[in-house]
Amino acid sequence: MKRYEDLSPSLRCIMTPGPVEVDPRVLRAMSFPILGQFDPEFTSIMNETMEMLRELFATGNQWAYPVDGTSRSGIEAVMVSLIAPGDRVLIPIFGRFGHLLHEIAERCGAEVFVIEKTWGSVFEPGEVIAAMHSFKPNVVAMVHGETSTGRVQPLAEIGRACRELDALFIVDAVATIGGVPVETDAWMLDAVIGGTQKCLSVPSGMAPITYNERAEAKLLTRKRVERGLRTSEVQPGELSFVRSNYFDLSMLQDYWSPLRLNHHTEMTSMLYALREGLRLTLEEGLEERFARHVLNEKALVAGLTAMGLELYGDPSCKLTVVTCVIIPEGVDGESVRSMLLERFGIEIASSFGPLKGLIWRIGTMGFSCRENNVLRVLGALEATLLRHGVSLPCGLAVQAALDVYEANIR
Amino acid sequence: MKRYEDLSPSLRCIMTPGPVEVDPRVLRAMSFPILGQFDPEFTSIMNETMEMLRELFATGNQWAYPVDGTSRSGIEAVMVSLIAPGDRVLIPIFGRFGHLLHEIAERCGAEVFVIEKTWGSVFEPGEVIAAMHSFKPNVVAMVHGETSTGRVQPLAEIGRACRELDALFIVDAVATIGGVPVETDAWMLDAVIGGTQKCLSVPSGMAPITYNERAEAKLLTRKRVERGLRTSEVQPGELSFVRSNYFDLSMLQDYWSPLRLNHHTEMTSMLYALREGLRLTLEEGLEERFARHVLNEKALVAGLTAMGLELYGDPSCKLTVVTCVIIPEGVDGESVRSMLLERFGIEIASSFGPLKGLIWRIGTMGFSCRENNVLRVLGALEATLLRHGVSLPCGLAVQAALDVYEANIR
Repeated sequence: MKRYEDLSPSLRCIMTPGPVEVDPRVLRAMSFPILGQFDPEFTSIMNETMEMLRELFATGNQWAYPVDGTSRSGIEAVMVSLIAPGDRVLIPIFGRFGHLLHEIAERCGAEVFVIEKTWGSVFEPGEVIAAMHSFKPNVVAMVHGETSTGRVQPLAEIGRACRELDALFIVDAVATIGGVPVETDAWMLDAVIGGTQKCLSVPSGMAPITYNERAEAKLLTRKRVERGLRTSEVQPGELSFVRSNYFDLSMLQDYWSPLRLNHHTEMTSMLYALREGLRLTLEEGLEERFARHVLNEKALVAGLTAMGLELYGDPSCKLTVVTCVIIPEGVDGESVRSMLLERFGIEIASSFGPLKGLIWRIGTMGFSCRENNVLRVLGALEATLLRHGVSLPCGLAVQAALDVYEANIR
Repeated sequence: MKRYEDLSPSLRCIMTPGPVEVDPRVLRAMSFPILGQFDPEFTSIMNETMEMLRELFATGNQWAYPVDGTSRSGIEAVMVSLIAPGDRVLIPIFGRFGHLLHEIAERCGAEVFVIEKTWGSVFEPGEVIAAMHSFKPNVVAMVHGETSTGRVQPLAEIGRACRELDALFIVDAVATIGGVPVETDAWMLDAVIGGTQKCLSVPSGMAPITYNERAEAKLLTRKRVERGLRTSEVQPGELSFVRSNYFDLSMLQDYWSPLRLNHHTEMTSMLYALREGLRLTLEEGLEERFARHVLNEKALVAGLTAMGLELYGDPSCKLTVVTCVIIPEGVDGESVRSMLLERFGIEIASSFGPLKGLIWRIGTMGFSCRENNVLRVLGALEATLLRHGVSLPCGLAVQAALDVYEANIR
């Protein structure tokens, strides 16, 4: 029999747009022995997690709970539950993850209308609103922070327009939640999906979502009680029922409600991790946390610029937590990334589609977003570029970042 | 701001049909710092996990990997990927989880044919084969071990018939994998779903699956490359494409293959846990592990019988890892369960649908399946029943179980 070794993953400095490093308190939470899913101690952990999620999403919504899967599972759960076959869905796309929303909406059987923006920029709210007037969608779905291009889309005006034109507004805030303000109620977002493995710094495995009464009303028109638990044969939602059992939010909310109607077996250890990640986030304070992300971005950008590197994309809509760097002419971007990982233990990200080979993406998210990591990645990148024959002004990058941190203390 | 306390779940003796107690080695594995999803150290952990899953499923299949979600996610992924709208699907039902397969098949848009067996028994293979001749299904889906009734369905003859009649055979082995033999290749199962939180004793959160070339061939006819990653507009599987992106196995297998085509962000900590749970299982040895489950069941049954309790269901098809006990006349089953949990720290399960209030279900699964737990539950159940005014022969239950263990040593 083949022998498999003890697990002993190397310690990494993870400066990608996720997954990122995890606070030791969250790692420890996962090592606690488990409780049964209907144990009163466990259901009280479920309830506390819902409370904390409401604060995180800045919402008074009743429904705020995690879907059991990676971030993508939360997106699919919201879309498959809120988009009925034949619904008119508008997807404004400004990067790779907008294409994912298009992909999922199509699989839901929607009539999809797409408007696209050149990668590296975002939409003027008026452009989206004009498209809404012309396509008359029932649902608008878009990304808040695009990690593929490092851009952030302003949402408040679009949210108001969706309310006025009676469209449901679904927002993918996977990359922003916990690192950048996401104002569910103030911006009139009807359903929001957050990610765990980015600014919350909880390992991938859960997708926190929230949705309001407008979204719930649509959900309930499609509701179907699970076979084996039904009391009658006639089902109100028979015609437009949700094509997924796992992702049917009308069933998930019954499981997360005091009814505790049996559905899946809740992921115990992941929920422990999420609860601890949320506690850390709320203990730090959301405003303080957003400010920390801004400060570290500022230091990183100062360092990269001092090194003579050029940033990608329209600066007016730069996403705080992802910095896209143009790979200097003649440099093999993948060779630089490998050297950073193998010699320095630092991971930065490559990129997708039209940007492949053209930019690196450096994340400053959650627990990874801290001074010593920023200084470390700047020093190592400088050394690695030198080793690749790039001529650059030595020593300035780390000094420029230190200047930013010191100015912040004064 | 509300203060949330440190996590400190009570230690439980979990004797339900899942989730069950987790080995400390698995809990520790989850506390290791994470790696990035494309870190070579991480992809090698993915590959090792696939190797170990092949052993677990007793298969030479290329594809054996976890779906990122609870057990139910694995069932839905296999069904939504292998059942096209309009497919003829036969579901033989002998308990609650057969109804779940029916539910999911319907949501996949299949034409579903159901045959039902009274709860507490299973099908004669000939009954299923006769139904296949009459309904001519493309797919047959059924449960191997029904935790709702504590029964196990023999599968080999049905598997052979599916091969002869050219139907795909999908098997839900969530409750049996790692505790009861599951012979994927020998029984000609085309796709099998296992569970983590039962006999593997890994926390809920992943669903290991395997499928063979027959299943893959069907999958590939439905394949669609994700928008944003496509090279051409015409898609071969355009007509019968899979209605889910998250659960599309043709995409998941590209992610688990050396291609590593980006899909979701793999659940790092859960994969660490699964790898460690598989290591523990293979170190113990599958045959030895199955024998341990048989021994502990024997001791539990001896103890319950000595206490004068009656078991539910046809003994010829009893599932080793779940023992269903008829609640004695006049006893409030829920009051007994609460007392066991609150005073003794022991959890046993209630039951679903037609059995609600009539039986308790006691699991002997994975890490929970050990002598000291069996003795503990017998002693505590006796004391609790006495406290509820049941007259029973005192002291015999634990002695009867000890007799079984001692006879096994001799």
